[in-house]
Amino acid sequence: MDGSWVNYAERIGADLHLELSGPGGRRAALIRSLREAVRGGRLAPGTRLPPYRSLAADLGVARNTVADAYAELVAEGWLTARQGSGTRVAERAEPLRHTARVPRKAPPRARGPRHDLRQGTPDASSFPRAAWLASYRRALQQAPNEVFGPGDPAGRVELREALTEYLARARGVRTEPDRIVICSGFAHALRLLFGQAGGGGGGVLRGPLAVEAYGLGFHRELLAAAGVRTVPLPLDEHGARIERLGRERAVLLTPAHQFPTGGPLDPARRAAVVDWARARGGVIVEDDYDGEFRYDRKPVGAVQGLDPERVIFVGSVSKSLSPAVRLGWMVLPERYVDDVLAAKGEREAWASVLDQLSLADFISRGSYDRHVRRMRQRYRSRRDRLAAALAAHAPHVEVTGVAAGLHAVLRLPPGTERSTVKAAT
Amino acid sequence: MDGSWVNYAERIGADLHLELSGPGGRRAALIRSLREAVRGGRLAPGTRLPPYRSLAADLGVARNTVADAYAELVAEGWLTARQGSGTRVAERAEPLRHTARVPRKAPPRARGPRHDLRQGTPDASSFPRAAWLASYRRALQQAPNEVFGPGDPAGRVELREALTEYLARARGVRTEPDRIVICSGFAHALRLLFGQAGGGGGGVLRGPLAVEAYGLGFHRELLAAAGVRTVPLPLDEHGARIERLGRERAVLLTPAHQFPTGGPLDPARRAAVVDWARARGGVIVEDDYDGEFRYDRKPVGAVQGLDPERVIFVGSVSKSLSPAVRLGWMVLPERYVDDVLAAKGEREAWASVLDQLSLADFISRGSYDRHVRRMRQRYRSRRDRLAAALAAHAPHVEVTGVAAGLHAVLRLPPGTERSTVKAAT
Repeated sequence: MDGSWVNYAERIGADLHLELSGPGGRRAALIRSLREAVRGGRLAPGTRLPPYRSLAADLGVARNTVADAYAELVAEGWLTARQGSGTRVAERAEPLRHTARVPRKAPPRARGPRHDLRQGTPDASSFPRAAWLASYRRALQQAPNEVFGPGDPAGRVELREALTEYLARARGVRTEPDRIVICSGFAHALRLLFGQAGGGGGGVLRGPLAVEAYGLGFHRELLAAAGVRTVPLPLDEHGARIERLGRERAVLLTPAHQFPTGGPLDPARRAAVVDWARARGGVIVEDDYDGEFRYDRKPVGAVQGLDPERVIFVGSVSKSLSPAVRLGWMVLPERYVDDVLAAKGEREAWASVLDQLSLADFISRGSYDRHVRRMRQRYRSRRDRLAAALAAHAPHVEVTGVAAGLHAVLRLPPGTERSTVKAAT
Repeated sequence: MDGSWVNYAERIGADLHLELSGPGGRRAALIRSLREAVRGGRLAPGTRLPPYRSLAADLGVARNTVADAYAELVAEGWLTARQGSGTRVAERAEPLRHTARVPRKAPPRARGPRHDLRQGTPDASSFPRAAWLASYRRALQQAPNEVFGPGDPAGRVELREALTEYLARARGVRTEPDRIVICSGFAHALRLLFGQAGGGGGGVLRGPLAVEAYGLGFHRELLAAAGVRTVPLPLDEHGARIERLGRERAVLLTPAHQFPTGGPLDPARRAAVVDWARARGGVIVEDDYDGEFRYDRKPVGAVQGLDPERVIFVGSVSKSLSPAVRLGWMVLPERYVDDVLAAKGEREAWASVLDQLSLADFISRGSYDRHVRRMRQRYRSRRDRLAAALAAHAPHVEVTGVAAGLHAVLRLPPGTERSTVKAAT
């Protein structure tokens, strides 16, 4: 009887944590405990309380004891009972006391500027919801049970296989599933390679690391926090000046689309940087952050294809799909695979395994290709509209770096920067 | 004309990266380039090539040039053309050369032992696929566009609100959404609190940190890698011996269900550790790794409820739902919120935003409660079967720590350990 009560309650109930103690019977203790939970704000106004049977079974008291306690608190005004909607905490009950704390700044997108021109942010209105949901459903329904247990830190093999084929076909990357490690994105990859904030050991690679002049500030900060010394590599119209590389142990490049100037790395320099790596025993970290988005017909494959043993190729879905899907990949020279896996941990502690399976399905079925190509058209026409608008309204502004990617470089005439920024804000 | 070609190709095509160079016309260059891509293994056997129009548009060559090149390579046996399935890389074409590299060890679950008795691993066959998919669908369909842009490092407010209500109701946690930070799980939380592997700064808290004797090895390793000195806190039948706390700055506890011995922290010691924290200005890190799974009726609420300004409460879905969903939460004293957010980064770089919205829906609709209660029943009956089997077949083995959680402690008679381990493997 009691057992069947429990089972019934288990099936229907919601959890409510209460401790029955102090003077008086269990009914009095329960009333005291519930009243305190509401007064203290632990149970927020509107919170639905569990059914009598459920709570009675949990606390090991008679069902009537719970019914009486609820009735008493309804009478006191702490709870309200409405036919059908069960017993709830009264709306006018005191909520959790509010702190003086100033609310944190809203998330970036929530500020809602009239025109959001921040670089590298994909069109959030174009996420392929239907196709992604279809892949997620298939992935979830077809997943073997072991998917829901501890995960392989390398990432799901289904995704590593899909990426091997896709990256070879679309980006000229030469690899195999065993040399790919899934991560949460480029920042995670940098942490795995160069150690975590705090400096010293932990990373797979050692500094000093050459980075392209300008480049992304947050990468430099992340590396600095990891205690990695960075050496700026100057740029010219052909991209990073490889001939300036010296005793550095590694170089971080954006060969497909230099950030921020926007040009591809000159073919001669692509060869030169591989020669440097071979001669010096150095390694190239290739940040392929938006390699899919080229608007002319000049293909720019991955430098990785030139020498898979000298290049660590890093990509993610943050630009191609959305930063809301926290997935990226590292294509590694064989000698780094085990160290990167060791840095990542015994089990998958980062990338959602269900999202990994979903992306594998999304790529294998061609949905990723279709989305990338659709977005390439959209971004190209955006680029054209921007160029046309600038030509019409600001012919004195030079536009560069628009053959690819999600940003453009505008050279303002001398002395107009401050007024331009002012007008934009 | 050409433009419309492009648009058509963009819509239908798949990406294929090729570079046309070298002697001869474009047709010869294309054939050379394709043959090399197949021979070099960059295009795997079975890979489907893009339609003529698509590739022609991408490369800026005539459609017939592509058709001729495909035909030539089909004749050479590199490609195969079948009605309906388009042109593919021939199956017998040479695959990517295999390396001598020994394949890495398979993921933990894939080893497939007859009985998987590793502690703390939820029943992978019980993942609520249908209910989770329903929540994921609703989350994806109802998500405002900004969800697909850069995310708030605190995590989605929808999830923090759902957790505020759930943790208050089910675990006795007193907090508000502004004091919750979403992360990828407990290991991520430890890294955010104590700094990343590499030691030195980066963390929000400083050592020395008292940890329960025994405890989880990988936590100690993670802390050691972060340069945090840990001091073991002895245990007895009432749990961690709080009176042994001294000059430590923080203590890591599992009050609801001590790992591994399995008992709850004695009520007097719960009060004592809060007194210690107040007196010493110390902080308690409460690891509520499986607090939902208690099989008797004695409730054990969170220590956090005793003093929200002295306790950092950390939980995750790894035990309650699955480690495949990489989501956890930190309930923080007000003074730590901004530092933890700073340690996490400018934007959400870790937890999948879609999974966050899905979990928010899953909790708000009561699916999480229902799943936890269903699993509690299942684990309880498992626990009972285990106890019965041991009583029947190994009456000399003492079983403890089975009032809660996903593991039991068996005390083997002296001198039988080695033979038992041997028999189990």
